[in-house]
Amino acid sequence: MVSWTLGMRRRRRRDGFARMLHKLTPTWRAPARIVLTAFFVGIMIGTGLLMLPAATAPGYQTTFVDALFTATSALCVVGLAAVDTAVHWSFLGQVIILCLVQVGGLGIMMLAAVFGLLVSRRVGLRLQITAQTESHGLGLGDFRSLALNVARLSLFFEAVTAVLLTARFWLGYDYTFPQALWFGVFHAVAAFNQAGFALFSDSMMGFAADPWICLPVIVTAIAGALGFPVLVELRRRLRTPRRWNLHTKITVITSGLLLVVGFLLITALEWNNPNTLGPLSPGGKLLAGFFHGTMPRSAGFNSVDVGQMNEATLLGTMVLMFIGGGSVSTAGGIKVTTFALLLFVLVAEARGDSKVNVMGRTIPATTQRQAISVALISLGVVVVGTMVLLTITDFGLPVVMFEVVSAFGVVGLSTGVTPDLPPAGHVLITALMFAGRLGPVTLAAALALRERSLRYELPEERPIVG
Amino acid sequence: MVSWTLGMRRRRRRDGFARMLHKLTPTWRAPARIVLTAFFVGIMIGTGLLMLPAATAPGYQTTFVDALFTATSALCVVGLAAVDTAVHWSFLGQVIILCLVQVGGLGIMMLAAVFGLLVSRRVGLRLQITAQTESHGLGLGDFRSLALNVARLSLFFEAVTAVLLTARFWLGYDYTFPQALWFGVFHAVAAFNQAGFALFSDSMMGFAADPWICLPVIVTAIAGALGFPVLVELRRRLRTPRRWNLHTKITVITSGLLLVVGFLLITALEWNNPNTLGPLSPGGKLLAGFFHGTMPRSAGFNSVDVGQMNEATLLGTMVLMFIGGGSVSTAGGIKVTTFALLLFVLVAEARGDSKVNVMGRTIPATTQRQAISVALISLGVVVVGTMVLLTITDFGLPVVMFEVVSAFGVVGLSTGVTPDLPPAGHVLITALMFAGRLGPVTLAAALALRERSLRYELPEERPIVG
Ligand SMILES: [K+]
Ligand SMILES: [K+]
Repeated sequence: MVSWTLGMRRRRRRDGFARMLHKLTPTWRAPARIVLTAFFVGIMIGTGLLMLPAATAPGYQTTFVDALFTATSALCVVGLAAVDTAVHWSFLGQVIILCLVQVGGLGIMMLAAVFGLLVSRRVGLRLQITAQTESHGLGLGDFRSLALNVARLSLFFEAVTAVLLTARFWLGYDYTFPQALWFGVFHAVAAFNQAGFALFSDSMMGFAADPWICLPVIVTAIAGALGFPVLVELRRRLRTPRRWNLHTKITVITSGLLLVVGFLLITALEWNNPNTLGPLSPGGKLLAGFFHGTMPRSAGFNSVDVGQMNEATLLGTMVLMFIGGGSVSTAGGIKVTTFALLLFVLVAEARGDSKVNVMGRTIPATTQRQAISVALISLGVVVVGTMVLLTITDFGLPVVMFEVVSAFGVVGLSTGVTPDLPPAGHVLITALMFAGRLGPVTLAAALALRERSLRYELPEERPIVG
Repeated sequence: MVSWTLGMRRRRRRDGFARMLHKLTPTWRAPARIVLTAFFVGIMIGTGLLMLPAATAPGYQTTFVDALFTATSALCVVGLAAVDTAVHWSFLGQVIILCLVQVGGLGIMMLAAVFGLLVSRRVGLRLQITAQTESHGLGLGDFRSLALNVARLSLFFEAVTAVLLTARFWLGYDYTFPQALWFGVFHAVAAFNQAGFALFSDSMMGFAADPWICLPVIVTAIAGALGFPVLVELRRRLRTPRRWNLHTKITVITSGLLLVVGFLLITALEWNNPNTLGPLSPGGKLLAGFFHGTMPRSAGFNSVDVGQMNEATLLGTMVLMFIGGGSVSTAGGIKVTTFALLLFVLVAEARGDSKVNVMGRTIPATTQRQAISVALISLGVVVVGTMVLLTITDFGLPVVMFEVVSAFGVVGLSTGVTPDLPPAGHVLITALMFAGRLGPVTLAAALALRERSLRYELPEERPIVG
C-alpha cells in the first residue's frame, strides 16, 4: 500500500491521491508496474535475508538459487520447498519465511482489493469492501480502512487457528509450550495465507488422522481461499444469502461444489491405495480425503504422500489446483469465479440464450472475455512451462506437470521432486510462482481497466466453429 | 445424405424438402439425431462385416470388441488400431476398412456441409459452398450439388495421390503392380480422409526418408484438413486472397502457422533422439519432422516411432491433435477456426477492444461463445476420459492422455499401447472416437441453430475475475 502514496505531499494528501488515481485508472500500466516492482523488491530482500549465515541451520549450505526459490515461494505464498523447511533453516530462517508469508499474503490481498476498487470505480462493479465505496469517490481513507480491514480479518483467523493448534500440539503431543506455540502460530499463518510451508519434514503426514490439527487447518484454509470481499459480505449478511452480491454467491457455491468434488475424487480414487489412504481407519480416510480435497485450492499442505497417489488423482488434483481459490484472496489459480463464468457461458450457449444470465443478473460480454483470457493464458503458461521443464529434467510428464501447475497455481503441493530439480528447474519454478501469483490478478485488472468502446462498426462475419 | 430425404414423396420433392428444412432449422435435435443414428448404424454394419470369418486373415481371431473398435476407427476416420491392420485382416477385411473410411470421410464432410448450410440459412453465414446458397432458398438441388462437389473433390485428391504413390511403390520398391496399386489407393484414400490406417505394421516408418511417399501423403493430408468450404473458395479465388471469406482466411493462416509450429517443435525436440529422428540424415530429419508436424492435424500416420518420442514432444503433439484441422473436413479436434477465435478473443481483450474485430470483420459474441463452448467441453471430455482410462489400465499418464486425445481428436497416432488396452479400454476409446468425430461438429451446429434472443433484460453485474 505504501507505494501508492510515494511522491505525494502530506498537506494535500487527499487531493493528490485523487489526482493520482485519476491518472492511474485510464491505464493499467502504472499499478501493474508498481505491484510487480514491489513484489520483485520484496523477493530480493527476502533472498538477501535468507542468505544470512544465521538463517541456515548448522551443517547446511544455502545457495543463491535456494534462497531465491524459498523467498519467492514464501512471499508468493506458494509453499514449494527446494530444501527441507524443517531442518535446513535455523529458527531465524523460519521466522524470516513466516514474515515473508505474512507480508506476501497481506500484500496480495490488499493489492487485489485495490485493483477491485479501481475496476469498480471504472466499470461500476458492485464490490462493497469499504463502506464508502458506493456513496462517493475514493479517498486515501478508503484505502487505509481497506488495509486495516484486510489485516484485521487475517489476524482474526490466524489467531483463532493458532490458539487451537497450539493447544493441540501442547496437550496432544510431546512438545513444550514454546515449541507448541511456535508450531501453532507458524502453521496458522501458513494455512490462512495458503502458504503450504510446514515445520515438519513430511508436512502434515504425522497428523493425517488427527481432526484437532487437520480441521482447524482445513477451516482456516477454506476461509482464506474465499477471499476478502466474500468474507466481508458474509460477515455483513451471513443470514440473508439472497442479498449477497453476485460475486459472493458464485464464489461460495462454486467453492462448495469444488470441495465436494475434490473430496469425492480423492476418497474414491485413493481409498484402497496402500501408500496413501489405505492404512487409515474409515474415519481417517474421510478426514485425509477431505484434507486433500481442500488443499489444492490452494493451501498446499499434505497429510498423505502426494507422490504415491495414483495418476488419475494427480490429474484431478491438477485441475483443482489450476482452478484455485476465490478472487482477492491469498489463493492462486485462475480463481473460482473465472471458472464459474466459463461454465455459465457454456450453459447459456447450451440453452441458446443470447446473453449470459446468472441468478437474475446479466454478465457483461467483456467480463466473459476477461475470464476466457485469464483461463487461456494460464493454460498456455502451464503447457509451455511443462514442456520446458520436461526438456531440462529427467522426470516424467505427470510429475513435471504437477510441479508446474502447483507453482503457477501457487499451491505448494508436490510429488516430492522439488529438491531434486536442477538449478535451471528451480529458476523456472521461481518464475512460474511469480507469474502465477501476480499474473491472473494483474491481468484481469489490466483487462478490466483497459476496456474501451470502439468508435467504428464493422460488418459481422462468422467463421465456422467445430 | 439419403436420410434427409426419407419419408418425402417424390412428386413434391422440392416443397416437401423446404418444409422439412423449415421444421428442422428451429431445433437442432432432428438433424443431430439423424446424424448420430446414421453413424451408429454405419458402425454396426461395419462391425458385422468385419466379424465375417473371411474378413480376418488365416490364423487370427476377431472379437466383437476388436471389430467394433476397428469399424468405429474406420468410419470415424481415426486410424487407431486395436489389431495390426497389415496382418490381422484379410484382403477383404482391408477392403471393408477402406470402404468404411471412404464412406465415413464423405459422410462427415457432407454432414458438416449440410450443418453449415442450415446455420448459414439461419444466421447469415457467408458460406459459399453451393452457387445458389446466397441467391435463393435451399432446395434439394443444392444438397445434391453439394454432395456431388464433395465427392468430386475427394476423388480428385485421392486419385492424384494414388497415382503418385502407386508409381513410387511400383518403381522404387519390390512390389508387383497390383500390390503397388492397392497400397497406393489405400494410403491415398486414408491420407485425404485423415484416417491414419496403414497396410504396413509400422505405418510409414519404412519410408521416413522417402520424399516420394511422404510428400504426396503430406500434401493430400494438408488439403483434406483444410476442409471443403476452404478448398472450394481456394479453387474459385486462389489468386485473390483479399476476396476470400473470413473463414478461409482464418483457416489458411492458422493452419499454416500450426504446421510451422509443429515442424519446429518436432524437429527441435527430436533432432538428436536416437530412437526417432537421430539416425536420419539432416534431409531425412527435416522430412520426418515435417511429416510429424503435419500428422497431428489429424491424418495420424507416423514415420518415426511415436512411443519413443520424448514427453515434451508428446505434450506438444497432444496440443496440436486437440486443435485439429479445418471445419467441414475429415479432420478432427476442436478445429483451427475454433482455436483461432479463442486467440482473437484474447487479442481483443489485451487491446481493450469492446468487440472482437478480425481482418475488417466483427465476430458476433454468440460465435465467440460457441468457440469457447466447443473448446471447454472438449477439454472436459479429454480430462475425464484420461482419468477413467487411467483407472482401468496400468499405463502412465502421458501414454494414456495421448491415446485419449488421439481418439477424441480422431487423429490415430499412438504411442503403441492401443492393442494392449483391456476390452473396457477399447470400449472407452471407441466411445471417445465416436464422440470426437460427431461431438464438436454437431455441438457447434446445434449451438448455432439454437440461438435466440431473450425477451427480457436483466441488470448487469460483474463478478471479479482472476
Ligand atoms: K499455497
Ligand atoms: K485420423
